[in-house]
Amino acid sequence: MIKISLPTLLALTIVNLLTACALPDQAQTSDLVSKKPNIVIVMTDDQGFGDLGINHNPIIQTPTIDALAEQSVRLSNFHVDPTCSPTRAALLTGKNSLKAGVWHTVMVRYLLSPKHETLAEKLQQDGYDTAIFGKWHLGDNYPYRPQEQGFNHVLIHGGGGVGQTPDYWGNTQFNDTYYRNGEPEKFDGYATTIWFDEAIKYITQPKDKPYFAYIALNAPHGPYRAPEAFIKPYLAKGLNRGMASFYGMITHIDGQVKKLRQAIRTTGEEDNTIFIFMTDNGSSYHPTDNNNNITKLHQQLKQDHPNWLPNGGLRGYKASTFEGGHRVPFYISYPNGNLKKGDYSTLTAHYDVMPTLLDFAGVSEFPDDIDGKSLRTLITEGSDSSLADRSIVITNQRVSIPSPERPVVVAKNEWRLLSQNGKEQLYNLSTDPSQMQNVISQHRDIAAELRKQRQAWWDDASKDGFLDSYIAIGNPAENPVRLNAMDWMEIKNEQGVPWFIGHQGTADERDYPHWLTREEDFQALPWYVDVEVSGEYQVRPYYHDIPAGTPVQKKYCVVDANGKRYIERVWLRSSHCKIDLPLSAGKQKLTAWFTDDETGQSKEKAAFYVYVEKR
Amino acid sequence: MIKISLPTLLALTIVNLLTACALPDQAQTSDLVSKKPNIVIVMTDDQGFGDLGINHNPIIQTPTIDALAEQSVRLSNFHVDPTCSPTRAALLTGKNSLKAGVWHTVMVRYLLSPKHETLAEKLQQDGYDTAIFGKWHLGDNYPYRPQEQGFNHVLIHGGGGVGQTPDYWGNTQFNDTYYRNGEPEKFDGYATTIWFDEAIKYITQPKDKPYFAYIALNAPHGPYRAPEAFIKPYLAKGLNRGMASFYGMITHIDGQVKKLRQAIRTTGEEDNTIFIFMTDNGSSYHPTDNNNNITKLHQQLKQDHPNWLPNGGLRGYKASTFEGGHRVPFYISYPNGNLKKGDYSTLTAHYDVMPTLLDFAGVSEFPDDIDGKSLRTLITEGSDSSLADRSIVITNQRVSIPSPERPVVVAKNEWRLLSQNGKEQLYNLSTDPSQMQNVISQHRDIAAELRKQRQAWWDDASKDGFLDSYIAIGNPAENPVRLNAMDWMEIKNEQGVPWFIGHQGTADERDYPHWLTREEDFQALPWYVDVEVSGEYQVRPYYHDIPAGTPVQKKYCVVDANGKRYIERVWLRSSHCKIDLPLSAGKQKLTAWFTDDETGQSKEKAAFYVYVEKR
Repeated sequence: MIKISLPTLLALTIVNLLTACALPDQAQTSDLVSKKPNIVIVMTDDQGFGDLGINHNPIIQTPTIDALAEQSVRLSNFHVDPTCSPTRAALLTGKNSLKAGVWHTVMVRYLLSPKHETLAEKLQQDGYDTAIFGKWHLGDNYPYRPQEQGFNHVLIHGGGGVGQTPDYWGNTQFNDTYYRNGEPEKFDGYATTIWFDEAIKYITQPKDKPYFAYIALNAPHGPYRAPEAFIKPYLAKGLNRGMASFYGMITHIDGQVKKLRQAIRTTGEEDNTIFIFMTDNGSSYHPTDNNNNITKLHQQLKQDHPNWLPNGGLRGYKASTFEGGHRVPFYISYPNGNLKKGDYSTLTAHYDVMPTLLDFAGVSEFPDDIDGKSLRTLITEGSDSSLADRSIVITNQRVSIPSPERPVVVAKNEWRLLSQNGKEQLYNLSTDPSQMQNVISQHRDIAAELRKQRQAWWDDASKDGFLDSYIAIGNPAENPVRLNAMDWMEIKNEQGVPWFIGHQGTADERDYPHWLTREEDFQALPWYVDVEVSGEYQVRPYYHDIPAGTPVQKKYCVVDANGKRYIERVWLRSSHCKIDLPLSAGKQKLTAWFTDDETGQSKEKAAFYVYVEKR
Repeated sequence: MIKISLPTLLALTIVNLLTACALPDQAQTSDLVSKKPNIVIVMTDDQGFGDLGINHNPIIQTPTIDALAEQSVRLSNFHVDPTCSPTRAALLTGKNSLKAGVWHTVMVRYLLSPKHETLAEKLQQDGYDTAIFGKWHLGDNYPYRPQEQGFNHVLIHGGGGVGQTPDYWGNTQFNDTYYRNGEPEKFDGYATTIWFDEAIKYITQPKDKPYFAYIALNAPHGPYRAPEAFIKPYLAKGLNRGMASFYGMITHIDGQVKKLRQAIRTTGEEDNTIFIFMTDNGSSYHPTDNNNNITKLHQQLKQDHPNWLPNGGLRGYKASTFEGGHRVPFYISYPNGNLKKGDYSTLTAHYDVMPTLLDFAGVSEFPDDIDGKSLRTLITEGSDSSLADRSIVITNQRVSIPSPERPVVVAKNEWRLLSQNGKEQLYNLSTDPSQMQNVISQHRDIAAELRKQRQAWWDDASKDGFLDSYIAIGNPAENPVRLNAMDWMEIKNEQGVPWFIGHQGTADERDYPHWLTREEDFQALPWYVDVEVSGEYQVRPYYHDIPAGTPVQKKYCVVDANGKRYIERVWLRSSHCKIDLPLSAGKQKLTAWFTDDETGQSKEKAAFYVYVEKR
């Protein structure tokens, strides 16, 4: 637990008053200082360190973000988790993701418990209006949703990406239906454009409060889809369709960032706005292999662009504990904040964002138990000795129950100690930025020191055990509750959860693991639910989700509620059945399937969606 | 063509002014007379003459409508067409349905050409605000939609019933998506409740104009579905599930009519409102057989309710030219209109409604060529000698090209001359109300006279030929245009059009002819389209409609545009493909299908929906 002593808002105000009295013609300055800044975070999804023009990439076109970087403080040694949900949990709680209880992207291991105070909640308490646009991926059911975690205005897709199992049925990134404060709403156009358009609408509405706009894009997460006009120029340059689409998504984002920045300018609030651009984990597009060699598919491209340093020269991609998995771009600007522009190689991380922003907002009381530190001193004064010897621990768990045997990296100064299944590797980035040479045998002392940090991190993160998350049933805040197969528990192959539906695979797109047309490969598994009130419930199992109207084409549906089985007829061409049953309050398991077997034993078709309604 | 001389609004106003001068304390009366009446029409679907308590039916519970009938003028010899669309066309144009160009319910033979002036258009021109709630069934594409035919406010389902092919995918009468002014909007609850709730919202909004609210229910058209609470009491009485559901739908309507009447009362406009309750054709529920014998399934019910006269004693049901197919309830009230309450056995018809209402609204100029006559004199003075010897001709065509050989009935006084395929029958209702005795051999003179009327009707209705309707493509009023398989042309079995999708067949419900799960029984057939502007179009064939997201699971899609074929890949799990092609202006045929055959010849799967967009 870190307690940070900082000037309070009151102290600041006194200073301002004094300044104002001494120098009445500089009253404007004092206004600027005392006014709370607006906060805008643009976070892209799966865009790695090397997927920006500014980072040794002469192929990708990102002029707006490159220019923004030049005008910003650049944290060039900024770390996140290697995958989506853990980064988001750390960003919003100031805690390392494992301690925040988020260590996977499926199977309810991505639900952010409401017991953690979020950045949005803290800002809300401090008088901010708060909004999220795009990807939440910390739980689509009460009490895990953004509207229950500090956001006044919510417009999101479901799950970890457009078209994933919790998302609105049929979404493809074009002309989709998204959830506004929990209610589906249909949009025309491309997903990324919608998030920015809606954020701009929000930002440009007159407000009597400072605001926090969290614009968390689904792009450029796969499937790689963008308006064709953004893909074509890259195809013309000789990129393969996958890379052209991935780059097209990013260039599209770049144009949207420009539009957003212009909109902020029109409000007259640009100088009073903290603007952050960052990404959530390493790149999902791999032009190099595991040994940093350029792959065959990209050799011609490298010849055409000899200055291109694939992946910014880093080793590893999304999900890796090598640097390329977790070191990402981070740019912050705040014209009124007296930031000292430039590159900072100080070790920083996602969990520093919350205390930094609260600090700028004048909130001195940070939640207990956070791991992050305010970077305000660093980025306004140019250095902060208190950050000099810090270490940061990053892990990639993606299992039901976390284990210290899973991939972990401890970062401290130039050192990186990687471990997995008891095997360790040590890299010195100052001499080996691409992590090619394991020097653990030459630096046993460094490894021993970092190993201690890892143990301390593990002891802290695991001190309360790793508890299962339960989806609340029967709370009026969400009734009915929709359960979906991405949250199935007890799955044998933990990477094989049916998390992506698979609508509309396009042209030469890489075919994602999907379950649409492969439904019969999946067996029904339990959801873990927490029934809040004992009583009569209606459980409605669906094969596909409601909008599909897909006939089940089995005679019976079965609901297993904590071991007790209920069976009902499925009527002609019905997409579902309805089972009225009593549920007792408490944590329990619910499983549902369809069968032609009148005893209900055989689980021929899983119910990928189940609606549970308190009557 | 009938020209009717009537007092104009001007004349009325002069009378009122004189009255007001002579009797200043009766100024209120003159206001009432000079103020244009609001108009509310509630029209139910497939509810026959005998499906109301007041018509010899002690089983069904319709207390509100029964009481309303008692307080209204009752036209007890009121005729409509034997099916949905033709009745609606005649009601809204004042013309017999064949002349209005509407003689079927599918295959674009139900599209009401905009060349016909509608009641709504006439009222709109006369300063009315106009609204439709529920079933239109005269065309779901431009320029046939209600918004193009005189309605300011439109909330409808697609096609001829909830869940039909043109309707929003997945609609089942519960928690559906309907079209508000062309845009889909999701509702919670039961369809009939939605129509009434929305009509009440409309009626109770403050208005500076008189209004016309056309509440055209989809109920009790099959599939017979109602909230269970309305079905259970009938099951308890021993009705089979089908009949109980049908009656439940009607009793539910009765409660909604009560709610609507109360809402009108709260606006203070009840006295100034013309309120019509009617139905669109004979009953779709058959407790008797073709020879008027009670069926086995209903014999116990008849024993339990000896006063029950099934079908009101009439022979024939929906689609029949026997009296039960086309004689329906019609009740009209108008407190300020000095109506003479009571039963009127004068021969009247749907096409009389338009001139009657225009007459009450003070519109003296009726459209040319209408067949209806104003009933104002009849129902205010108790008789109208000009109606004494009229004849009314009703037909049931339901074919591509109308023919006088199809079933026709000529009604005049007590006589009914039925014909089909050259065979004739004559009935005298005064002695044989159930049409059991064909008396044609005894009354050759009567038959000859009525035969002349039939010939005159046919000559008039067929004078312009029977033209195909074409769906407009490329008009900005509707772009893209959605084509659906209910409008396929050139189908061999004209009764076998895939007009009903078939979602969610329930419990013991009669299984409707449907195409969901039977898709492969249907071969792709052409749509007839009228391309308004030559240019580039994108054609997007879908197997199921967009919300379903159903993968096509064929490799290619083919569009045949007027004989020229275009072929495209269908990508992974895609629900559709996109084909860019040029279309020349003019009338032409468009067909689309899916196949694994790279030559595109084989038509393995039909595209049940095709979107055509002008680029």
